[in-house]
Amino acid sequence: MNKLYYSPGACSVGIHVLLEEIGKPYEAVLTNLREGAQFKPEFIALNPKSKVPTLQRDDGSALTEFPAIAYWLATTNPDKKLLPADTEAQARALEAMDYVVSTMHMQGFSRMFRPSNFAPSEADHEAVKARGKEIFEKGLAVMEKAMAGKDYVAGSFSVADAALFYVEFWWADRLGQKLPANLAAHYARMKARPAVAAVLKKEGLAA
Amino acid sequence: MNKLYYSPGACSVGIHVLLEEIGKPYEAVLTNLREGAQFKPEFIALNPKSKVPTLQRDDGSALTEFPAIAYWLATTNPDKKLLPADTEAQARALEAMDYVVSTMHMQGFSRMFRPSNFAPSEADHEAVKARGKEIFEKGLAVMEKAMAGKDYVAGSFSVADAALFYVEFWWADRLGQKLPANLAAHYARMKARPAVAAVLKKEGLAA
Repeated sequence: MNKLYYSPGACSVGIHVLLEEIGKPYEAVLTNLREGAQFKPEFIALNPKSKVPTLQRDDGSALTEFPAIAYWLATTNPDKKLLPADTEAQARALEAMDYVVSTMHMQGFSRMFRPSNFAPSEADHEAVKARGKEIFEKGLAVMEKAMAGKDYVAGSFSVADAALFYVEFWWADRLGQKLPANLAAHYARMKARPAVAAVLKKEGLAA
Repeated sequence: MNKLYYSPGACSVGIHVLLEEIGKPYEAVLTNLREGAQFKPEFIALNPKSKVPTLQRDDGSALTEFPAIAYWLATTNPDKKLLPADTEAQARALEAMDYVVSTMHMQGFSRMFRPSNFAPSEADHEAVKARGKEIFEKGLAVMEKAMAGKDYVAGSFSVADAALFYVEFWWADRLGQKLPANLAAHYARMKARPAVAAVLKKEGLAA
């Protein structure tokens, strides 16, 4: 059985959604980042990067990096069609997922949530947060345009939606900010999926 | 014909290597980041993210994000076997590529090369660079272990090697730092490939 190491409301929520969409038994292992669980020796032995999501498979091996875990779950569950069938749509799904994770999250949100990891001087922290917001809002504009006329990033539900969902959740629910129209509609569409509602409840994030 | 927008020695060199490995005609379009070419209106019209690598395809559309471009080149040129055949090796190749690009490069090297994008106060820039070096060296340790007993990241040459190559190049040649043993051997193996030698010459980076 796949074991997902997650922290409530962290980016791991996107992988949690994919596991729930797949619908096979899995185990969700609480790894509270705020309490430093990712730096405990037993977690470092599993994933020396000290990050969630970490997926431990049946053979005990750990797979890391959001896009790689999402890709593996999609390819090992082909009946769920979590990756589009054609090459161009696959590339577009990966492009959106990579941008959300490596730029909107890791360059944008990370500056807003943990400015001390960017600038040591506390006097700079407001400027760091503002730069993070600027990067994130540029990302919102890029994704808003990419979503024009579409229900999901690649047309039908795919791994890219699980990534976009978690940054929409952070922006709308954690920061109380307004999403642009296409992304607000996408976010509502995601929250209406039974798998998403189940995960929000399991992670203690349901309104 | 595929058109690669690149800046000499930037991460786009990894995609340049893949195009050369594929061996079909392509065009390399100089987009000098140091001169701000990525912010010119004609480039923004192509890629509003203002980043290289950007790949413009036959239909005029632009594909962005290193891992997505690499994946698309691999899947549209299946005879070149730039992605391993089996699912587990594919996931491992994507895991390595994502880690190199989003963490070792964008969190590590970016702090060393452009500290002002992380901390506004110049007094903090040495601390930002030191944090970047720390992140990068943790990445070197992770990849050194992953490369134990292997010639290439996924066994045989794949898209992941093109990513690992560009950060090895930055560390060894741009910063003059020492690579750990397995990565030093990988870097030498990469430089011995005719495609890599050709690209270094074309970008004006050959020793």
